[in-house]
Amino acid sequence: MQIQVEFSLVPIGGDPHLARDIALCQQILLEHGLHVELHAMGTNIEGDWDTVMTAVRACHQALHQAGRPRLYGVLKIVSAGDGEKSFAEKVASVQRHLVTAAD
Amino acid sequence: MQIQVEFSLVPIGGDPHLARDIALCQQILLEHGLHVELHAMGTNIEGDWDTVMTAVRACHQALHQAGRPRLYGVLKIVSAGDGEKSFAEKVASVQRHLVTAAD
Amino acid sequence: MQIQVEFSLVPIGGDPHLARDIALCQQILLEHGLHVELHAMGTNIEGDWDTVMTAVRACHQALHQAGRPRLYGVLKIVSAGDGEKSFAEKVASVQRHLVTAAD
Amino acid sequence: MQIQVEFSLVPIGGDPHLARDIALCQQILLEHGLHVELHAMGTNIEGDWDTVMTAVRACHQALHQAGRPRLYGVLKIVSAGDGEKSFAEKVASVQRHLVTAAD
Repeated sequence: MQIQVEFSLVPIGGDPHLARDIALCQQILLEHGLHVELHAMGTNIEGDWDTVMTAVRACHQALHQAGRPRLYGVLKIVSAGDGEKSFAEKVASVQRHLVTAAD
Repeated sequence: MQIQVEFSLVPIGGDPHLARDIALCQQILLEHGLHVELHAMGTNIEGDWDTVMTAVRACHQALHQAGRPRLYGVLKIVSAGDGEKSFAEKVASVQRHLVTAAD
Repeated sequence: MQIQVEFSLVPIGGDPHLARDIALCQQILLEHGLHVELHAMGTNIEGDWDTVMTAVRACHQALHQAGRPRLYGVLKIVSAGDGEKSFAEKVASVQRHLVTAAD
Repeated sequence: MQIQVEFSLVPIGGDPHLARDIALCQQILLEHGLHVELHAMGTNIEGDWDTVMTAVRACHQALHQAGRPRLYGVLKIVSAGDGEKSFAEKVASVQRHLVTAAD
């Protein structure tokens, strides 16, 4: 099952600077061969369910090993039985409506 | 890795009544032997990562098969390297603070 | 506009124990006259949009003042133009389907 | 209080195509003078609490008026007592760590 996911991962407690943790997780997602789009509030991920969830679990484990005792992850998951538009198509589709509305 | 999860699953489009879908998913979670607490805005789930995620994937698949072409799931995941308080202990711990504050 | 909300608030960095923060926020929600149901992964809140959001903002502000420099809040919001079932009715409605399925 | 928000809004039931709804909401956010970054799984918004929440409420109301009886919104909110890095700085900061790790 192909899914599209928005993922963010926040350590509970400890050092409030997160850029290094996010970079570590980013690398893990890429190593799993996933299509990944980092944005300012999380990361969009496209792939099949098992690969995405294996990668997300690996992020949790890597951050625990890097000294983060508690983690708070948020996943938004879109699944579609008959396929979804790609990330790029989704954004383009909204922008077409915006242009039309501005005419 | 043990996790605690808050899970909600909303079909995109189609029949706006969701109780039957939620009940179907509830049953799947229970069949996976997970500790499950249904509440008005989602379901809290306690278990090891793989069992929880297998059950959540089964919910998505069952709802697709039941005629929901697109699904929107939201997962909040708390993982802890060194174990977490149980659900009951968490609520009790907040309530103790409430009582103290009211004294 | 009446809404139903699931709310959780996690400090980024600092003391990883959250029960006191959650209790403080709980009290603020109650002081705003909202219907509030604490559960193990967050708090369900029922009320009109402005009161709910004023209370949620007050939670953020109170925790900043209590020494939490950065906060991560997650809100799930259900709004309905023509009214929603109450929290209790929602849970009962799912449970009726569970009983029927078990017959 | 300045906040950074990740926002998504999904109609429950009805037409499963959402691009027009998202475009309508996008326009409302822009009309409120907010810094807005659309991505494939939601929209990142930067602004002060009251303006952001007024705009998000206006999105809910506009979609109800456009014929969506029930809506499911998800908001992730980062608030900081002492200011946050901008969206661009956040992404750049993660990318610097990625480059360093690749060296």
